[in-house]
Amino acid sequence: MLKVKKVAVDTTPENTVFLDRNCVFYRAEEFTALKKIEVIGVTKTILATLIIADDEAIVGADELGLAAPAFRRLNNREGAPVRIAQAPPRPSLEAVRKKIDGAEMTESEIAAIITDIAAYRYSPMEIAAFLISSASFMTTREVLGLTRAMKNAGTTLDWKWPIIVDKHCVGGVPGNRTSMIVAPIVASHGLYMPKTSSRAITSPAGTADTMEVLARVDLSTEEMRSVVDKEKACLAWGGRVNLSPADDVLISVERPLRIDTREQMVASILSKKAAAGSTHLLIDIPVGPSAKIRSRADAIQLRKLFEFVADQLGLTLEVVTTDGSQPIGRGVGPVLESRDVMAVLRNEPDAPEDLRERALTLAGKVLEFDPKLRGGAGRARAEDLLDSGAALASMEGIIAAQGPSPTRYALGEITLDVIAPRSGVVSAMDCQRLGRIARLAGAPMDKGAGLDFFKKIGDPVEKGEALYRIYSCYPSDFEFASTCAAEESGMTISETHLERPKA
Amino acid sequence: MLKVKKVAVDTTPENTVFLDRNCVFYRAEEFTALKKIEVIGVTKTILATLIIADDEAIVGADELGLAAPAFRRLNNREGAPVRIAQAPPRPSLEAVRKKIDGAEMTESEIAAIITDIAAYRYSPMEIAAFLISSASFMTTREVLGLTRAMKNAGTTLDWKWPIIVDKHCVGGVPGNRTSMIVAPIVASHGLYMPKTSSRAITSPAGTADTMEVLARVDLSTEEMRSVVDKEKACLAWGGRVNLSPADDVLISVERPLRIDTREQMVASILSKKAAAGSTHLLIDIPVGPSAKIRSRADAIQLRKLFEFVADQLGLTLEVVTTDGSQPIGRGVGPVLESRDVMAVLRNEPDAPEDLRERALTLAGKVLEFDPKLRGGAGRARAEDLLDSGAALASMEGIIAAQGPSPTRYALGEITLDVIAPRSGVVSAMDCQRLGRIARLAGAPMDKGAGLDFFKKIGDPVEKGEALYRIYSCYPSDFEFASTCAAEESGMTISETHLERPKA
Repeated sequence: MLKVKKVAVDTTPENTVFLDRNCVFYRAEEFTALKKIEVIGVTKTILATLIIADDEAIVGADELGLAAPAFRRLNNREGAPVRIAQAPPRPSLEAVRKKIDGAEMTESEIAAIITDIAAYRYSPMEIAAFLISSASFMTTREVLGLTRAMKNAGTTLDWKWPIIVDKHCVGGVPGNRTSMIVAPIVASHGLYMPKTSSRAITSPAGTADTMEVLARVDLSTEEMRSVVDKEKACLAWGGRVNLSPADDVLISVERPLRIDTREQMVASILSKKAAAGSTHLLIDIPVGPSAKIRSRADAIQLRKLFEFVADQLGLTLEVVTTDGSQPIGRGVGPVLESRDVMAVLRNEPDAPEDLRERALTLAGKVLEFDPKLRGGAGRARAEDLLDSGAALASMEGIIAAQGPSPTRYALGEITLDVIAPRSGVVSAMDCQRLGRIARLAGAPMDKGAGLDFFKKIGDPVEKGEALYRIYSCYPSDFEFASTCAAEESGMTISETHLERPKA
Repeated sequence: MLKVKKVAVDTTPENTVFLDRNCVFYRAEEFTALKKIEVIGVTKTILATLIIADDEAIVGADELGLAAPAFRRLNNREGAPVRIAQAPPRPSLEAVRKKIDGAEMTESEIAAIITDIAAYRYSPMEIAAFLISSASFMTTREVLGLTRAMKNAGTTLDWKWPIIVDKHCVGGVPGNRTSMIVAPIVASHGLYMPKTSSRAITSPAGTADTMEVLARVDLSTEEMRSVVDKEKACLAWGGRVNLSPADDVLISVERPLRIDTREQMVASILSKKAAAGSTHLLIDIPVGPSAKIRSRADAIQLRKLFEFVADQLGLTLEVVTTDGSQPIGRGVGPVLESRDVMAVLRNEPDAPEDLRERALTLAGKVLEFDPKLRGGAGRARAEDLLDSGAALASMEGIIAAQGPSPTRYALGEITLDVIAPRSGVVSAMDCQRLGRIARLAGAPMDKGAGLDFFKKIGDPVEKGEALYRIYSCYPSDFEFASTCAAEESGMTISETHLERPKA
């Protein structure tokens, strides 16, 4: 029997194991054709991708090296006995092959696939096979089955109140940090909004990253419940709660492949919201030439799919399409976005008007979920709660209840002003490009990295004036971001004055 | 700048690199979302998949660890300076995304994809995305474009003779080692057949594996030319010649996913044959309930696609469908199959009749490519050449010209006879199951491992009689194979006598 050895490399989320080419118990190369092996530990069996090693320092001839995720999941001490075998054929992969051949998957086949994915039994290439086979065609019944399966594969929360509201943006527009304003408005009205968010994966900041500048976000389920009991809302990172864990595994492949289908998006969002116990959900779909959704027609198709699945799940859902033609607010990146959010909550005179407007619109829609509120009164009520300071007080309560952030985050100290190459009017901003520059600058990993805009669409500029400032914490990131901005700044300046598009 | 370090792990064919989590030059975690990074060496730039490491023994804080394939391809000494960057967006992946959305790929888009794949710029998940997007639907024009692109991505051979024949079996039937009989027959007639074969990937033996028992097979292009100049044929491993290298990369993902579409099969086979300079090609499609192709209708569809692409490439092609209901010959595995092949060539009285028959049929068809031969005379001519010993002499010439195998291979010494559980008649043999048992026994990695059949379809058996013998070289493999055979031996015994199906 081989002995377990931990190999300190991070192959998240994949299980990877190392076997010495001259292994004394097994002919290592016999396992390579299919890459996947079964690892049988003392109490647990996992599937893992095999890499052959030729270095005793990595793994000895009588050892099986387990990369960090596999080591954690096998849950054995170093030196514990372990056997390996060819991975047995998996029925759920048969269903994927059927789907590739054009068949419709049954609900139980989808459930088997999602169970295997949530248990880390699929390699990235297998996950890609599932995603792409579904990307080209998926029936609405399959999307519903997928959403249910993803919801059921993890923790599901339930709450003691009849109405649990939530709001979610499909993304694609930097700086669109409205949840941190909507949640305190809604909570100060009296509705419950236990919001869990993800960290940004390919965008420069997620709500969890930004909230973390102000408070602890890695709450356990119990801590989350106690915050919501007290404050009616929370703004927590969903990672510790284990809602729809298959989604995180799927995302680990969707993002590098940059595939983002309507069907996956709906299943991903609704499975998490249903698992989190939401009863009423507002979906924000920003539409713009460089946003995730590029046209009204696409937005309508997406809306209909959201509506179909939500109806079947018994979730009350409203969809609102918003202007996604440019970043929202001034800052992009956790520290800068938290500054904008707090400026709006504090009613500061120079708070970014577009962020305030967007947040009020969305909060108004969420408030309309309250049956006691007169139809059409949501927006005005939202404005009252924000202007009166009730929302700020609620946010301060949430921050206090979640506890202070373990670290104090400052703005990056390496900066560069990106300059207008000519005079004119800002006529377009490329959300994707600007998001990429902010990421290269270090956001969201470095919370103080990002972009701060001095100009937005419709603003006149003089040649040589600063368009935005890049903030970085490290020289290598600064170099990446400056080079990218120099190639193409992401801002278009036209000679003629263009009207600023309406939200 | 980071310093190159070789990490002795084999991630073939993928480029994999290791970066310390506390790297002094880069924020390692910033690179993880997209997994792919650009590695800029002194003279070369490669794309690689990134793994974060937490162990100085694997990679230091000022080093970039390169797994064996990446180290070889970057072609720098250890300690050489190296930079990294986020992988730039690749246009060929845009084409894959278009295909996922249902578009037809243009010939130049396919060429860009294949060039990137042949240069190891795609990760397994990206390869899977390409394969699956094409698996669900591919136009014949796309298949043609794919075949051309795959051919052009590697070495192409040309020969000074007007007719270069080849034969290829689409596979799926263990023991079907006819090429090693057809090539010497055809060469002794005077046609040129420079055959390159692959090693088995998921089957228990390929022609290259089996020929290697008798002679060296890893010939360079020059060595191959000199063998063919002298003997009119060779039986070489294609790996050193670099024909259609994208195919090997695609196979590394197709096999674990067990996807084997008509379109990929045609592009894979014809790109290799066209690159090898073949002008006339015979394709053998075995049809059987457990073979790769299960029905006549499937075989006809496959044949038509072969014909369409071959016509466009200017390749003369004939397709023959054969009986794929059971293994051919007696042995399965390199040593046992080479024994059967030589028994046929030597006209030994107990040589397996089915292998001889199959080889004569195919050789007859190949001989008909000779314009000087009277139509219909191929089969009789093949028989003459085999019976007269001319084919044997040719095989001996090929073996001598290729040189002796560097190793002498013996039959495995750990054996088990699989016993008939009752009396009756063998009514079915499961090619897939028997292939799997032979592989578990160690074939083709251990050339002496495999199965030797005492009974085939139509043979009467008594309860307790041996059906076949398992040969293994190592106890662990023997254990795997015996367990699998005990579960389900792959042979069905019926009480009533069934007619042996005709080829």
